[in-house]
Amino acid sequence: MSKPLRIAMAGLGTVGGGVAGLLLNADGELAERASRRLELVAVSARDRAKARAADVSRLEWHDDAVTLAACDADVVVELIGGAEGPARALVEAALKSGKHVVTANKALLAHHGAALAALAEESGVALKFEAAAAGGIPIVKALRESLIAYGIDAVRGILNGTCNYILTQMEATGRSFAAVLAEAQKLGFAEADPALDIGGGDTAHKLALLSSLAFGIVPSLDAIKTEGIAHITPEDIAFAREFGYRIKLLGMARRTPSGLDQRVQPAMVRAGTPLGDVEGVFNAVLADAGAAGPFFFEGRGAGEAPTASAVVSDLVDIARGAVGAAFGRPAARLKTLSGAPPARVSPYYLRFNVLDVPGVLAEIAGRLAEAAVSIESMIQRGRSPGEPVSIVMITHECSESDVARALKVIAGSDKVLAEPCMIPMEAG
Amino acid sequence: MSKPLRIAMAGLGTVGGGVAGLLLNADGELAERASRRLELVAVSARDRAKARAADVSRLEWHDDAVTLAACDADVVVELIGGAEGPARALVEAALKSGKHVVTANKALLAHHGAALAALAEESGVALKFEAAAAGGIPIVKALRESLIAYGIDAVRGILNGTCNYILTQMEATGRSFAAVLAEAQKLGFAEADPALDIGGGDTAHKLALLSSLAFGIVPSLDAIKTEGIAHITPEDIAFAREFGYRIKLLGMARRTPSGLDQRVQPAMVRAGTPLGDVEGVFNAVLADAGAAGPFFFEGRGAGEAPTASAVVSDLVDIARGAVGAAFGRPAARLKTLSGAPPARVSPYYLRFNVLDVPGVLAEIAGRLAEAAVSIESMIQRGRSPGEPVSIVMITHECSESDVARALKVIAGSDKVLAEPCMIPMEAG
Repeated sequence: MSKPLRIAMAGLGTVGGGVAGLLLNADGELAERASRRLELVAVSARDRAKARAADVSRLEWHDDAVTLAACDADVVVELIGGAEGPARALVEAALKSGKHVVTANKALLAHHGAALAALAEESGVALKFEAAAAGGIPIVKALRESLIAYGIDAVRGILNGTCNYILTQMEATGRSFAAVLAEAQKLGFAEADPALDIGGGDTAHKLALLSSLAFGIVPSLDAIKTEGIAHITPEDIAFAREFGYRIKLLGMARRTPSGLDQRVQPAMVRAGTPLGDVEGVFNAVLADAGAAGPFFFEGRGAGEAPTASAVVSDLVDIARGAVGAAFGRPAARLKTLSGAPPARVSPYYLRFNVLDVPGVLAEIAGRLAEAAVSIESMIQRGRSPGEPVSIVMITHECSESDVARALKVIAGSDKVLAEPCMIPMEAG
Repeated sequence: MSKPLRIAMAGLGTVGGGVAGLLLNADGELAERASRRLELVAVSARDRAKARAADVSRLEWHDDAVTLAACDADVVVELIGGAEGPARALVEAALKSGKHVVTANKALLAHHGAALAALAEESGVALKFEAAAAGGIPIVKALRESLIAYGIDAVRGILNGTCNYILTQMEATGRSFAAVLAEAQKLGFAEADPALDIGGGDTAHKLALLSSLAFGIVPSLDAIKTEGIAHITPEDIAFAREFGYRIKLLGMARRTPSGLDQRVQPAMVRAGTPLGDVEGVFNAVLADAGAAGPFFFEGRGAGEAPTASAVVSDLVDIARGAVGAAFGRPAARLKTLSGAPPARVSPYYLRFNVLDVPGVLAEIAGRLAEAAVSIESMIQRGRSPGEPVSIVMITHECSESDVARALKVIAGSDKVLAEPCMIPMEAG
């Protein structure tokens, strides 16, 4: 057996603690799979004195994470997080000093992925990030190494467990977004500051990585249209159910005749389809691999064990000498996309909160018709003359920009009480 | 870029033709991903004169596949099939002569996998077989390289598209097994000789490979209990539906307190679960990866593009220098299992074809009670005094051997008209 792979790790939170536990208590099976021992030799975290499940007391300790780049190790594992600051400094320094890097840091890679991949190539080392997208699901490896022969037409996924948990709970309980979010925070399924999750930003980070792997583009948020879930109401979810759909926050990247369409958006996904049936904190990815067909992957997208499992799989890859390009191709060959994605063409769910007065439906229908948006079905529940009611419609296939133009006019009507809601329908 | 990876290929049928097309028409993207060109240099097939979509006329031609092992290539792709004969001879000769091998041959590996893996290790070359289990789904790579940190508790899957197509069609049309099989043969979804598919043998071959990767055992059929689907009736499928289940032919391997339980069996899987909802020719695998949780993979398990995609992913792996142990661990460390698997403990679906005469239900219930098999629910549809009727029961959790013992006694009753049917219930 070759000499051990020496590992330095920055960050001893939930995931770092899990990885440390796996490496320190390894029973020989990992070494067998890796053809060599994985040896954790140095760590860095904010608080040395903190009690931890994994005993790191005999390891080299670094108060300053960035100094791990200079320690006697083959690989640096970065679990600090954040697109800038010590995470970026450590990863850059480690790659420059010829150390492999394993990271779970989606923000860092979504912003600086191509530059870091280039650094890794210059030094002839690996930059691996299975844990950065969809947690334990080996989707990074699948897109990088497996689903490559026929190209990818589309990659779409439920990439944020917090949002999927909230939407699942809203459906199960009929409660409001705010109430379910507050409960999720109490239960530890949502962060104290949930903006990055519920605003779609975290999903966009992950989509940028999957999109880079699938389509050979520079990972970037610039060309990803991003929308969160805070505006989804229990009523939307109930209507969706009535039509046979569920509302899911999807990251979607697909080739279209007008270019690559990348977006993070709540979408109506038919119940009974793979993506439509993903429940709770689970993540899932559907990859359309050309003639090879659709491939669906589902599993835990966050948490100690799933994420630590992904980190360890990257370490074993490196131990076995798998040092390929970070995004599957030489960094210099990644193409840069910019500007907003092309307007989406699909059916849409529309909800209008209106005064129940004569003529309101005619007005809405008229505005939609003027914008070439045609209606497939409509629900108006009950009647409350002079009171607020909801009108819900599903359109035929139409352009996002046509719908948006019509909604802007409709929103200006004095019979319309709130911003109309539009949610695309998406095959699941 | 390094020098090309030189490839010799035996077998130019559906899959071989697909691989040849991909390699001969490669547009540079594969080379980018592989860090070098993949060059098909030599081929062998039964009939040189046969018209083919891929133009192989300028390649070195071998009438005898086994001589490919001696040609000037780095890798031999074996797509001949069969556990013995030229396929085995070619793979052995290629490995001995220091050539990497990529194969889709599940029968060969299920019988000789450990010996071939040892040969590959001795020569320091790769033996890869992503295409041998679940076609385009990258489950071999996932079990070998990704889901390794926490071990695997169970791996279960729908691994034979022909059987899943037949069962799906039986449910959709209410027609008999024989009628649907005949139609599937006409449509090309079933072989002229369907025994290996419908008898469960093909699923057993694939399960042996997944089980080896997951549990570190020598691939072997010896410890896999194998049952096919020919005895499943439209009535069973209709009753399953009534209870909220679908009948699926599953390959299942799971750790139990009494040892590794490996079996291929039709099972009742709840509709609305990942495995329960796999339709038509699709394949799927559910891997319980310890604390990292369940992971689900679904996609096309056969056919030109999915299988060629898997073969090409192995070639790209080899081009990038990924030469790990074939089954994830050194061949010498694989453990040998033998003997029948431990008796399964689960609820069972039981169907009895009986004469509708007084006392028949009491007799069946009595025999089951004597064997400690307790009943959760029962359906007897209609009444036809003196005529044959079906009685269907779902048991509480009980031992397979207890059920089998009771059924043997019950089958001896003169009121029981046919061999009773027992199908385990399985979480999906």
